Amino acid sequence: MVMEKTERKIMVAVDESQESMYALSWCLSNLVSDNVNNVKLVLLYVKPSPSVHSLDAPGHIFSSDVISNLEKHGKDLANSVMERAGAICRKLNTTNITMERVVGSGDAKDVICSAVKKLEADTLVMGTHSYGFFKRALLGSVSDHCAKHAKCPVVIVKYP
Amino acid sequence: MVMEKTERKIMVAVDESQESMYALSWCLSNLVSDNVNNVKLVLLYVKPSPSVHSLDAPGHIFSSDVISNLEKHGKDLANSVMERAGAICRKLNTTNITMERVVGSGDAKDVICSAVKKLEADTLVMGTHSYGFFKRALLGSVSDHCAKHAKCPVVIVKYP
Repeated sequence: MVMEKTERKIMVAVDESQESMYALSWCLSNLVSDNVNNVKLVLLYVKPSPSVHSLDAPGHIFSSDVISNLEKHGKDLANSVMERAGAICRKLNTTNITMERVVGSGDAKDVICSAVKKLEADTLVMGTHSYGFFKRALLGSVSDHCAKHAKCPVVIVKYP
Repeated sequence: MVMEKTERKIMVAVDESQESMYALSWCLSNLVSDNVNNVKLVLLYVKPSPSVHSLDAPGHIFSSDVISNLEKHGKDLANSVMERAGAICRKLNTTNITMERVVGSGDAKDVICSAVKKLEADTLVMGTHSYGFFKRALLGSVSDHCAKHAKCPVVIVKYP
């Protein structure tokens, strides 16, 4: 019943939203206490797959310039999110934990669940968007999916 | 962004399942660290509403003996769950936290969400049953519902 593992690996899924930065703050305030030095924090950012298809329809053809611009934008966004997340960690003075930054690419819900399994996370923390019914029905919900399918305890943090 | 509340109220929904006792252990090992003394742990048990109806159909009429036996059984179950939960807390040596036992009655998912609101819980922790698709579709899932509707961060702990 009691868990006796020496290192705890906490994965926080971060994106450009305020909700995910709040989830990170919550995690640092509630799951990582000051005297704990066996925590590894994994910040996971998932870039959407570039929706670039070389189909015959002219609207779907992009020049290599456009593609490299899209890729640059994705990389910039990942860097910017990681920087914001790092700033929150520094602000909450968690110098005694080790940190790892992981950037994945693809469908967020699948990438997050795979990363939990592959990196053997002990806990997954994620924010949630308070979509209304229609938007939720259309978009699905990454946090719903991960709460069901990730192979570890999942913390769903709502932005108040 | 940073939460500066002095007391944290952590609500753990417990029932007679191994999953919920595991969730409680997880909570004590991960959310309550040894040097924290501002945590209030609320153990919430929800008795199902007695499905006793005084309809005209003979199959639905119960004598007052049967009813009081059902009520006694419900009370015994609540006590037994609370005792098991208390034993886990003592075993994990969390003498520095205050504890409150709350027993509700009704539809678990609604009672849990109401209790979070009414008692102003900061975090809700619950286990989850690994039902297959059909059982989940038939029974719905208390943890799914609470993850969406409870007004605080929700930790869904899976039994490994």
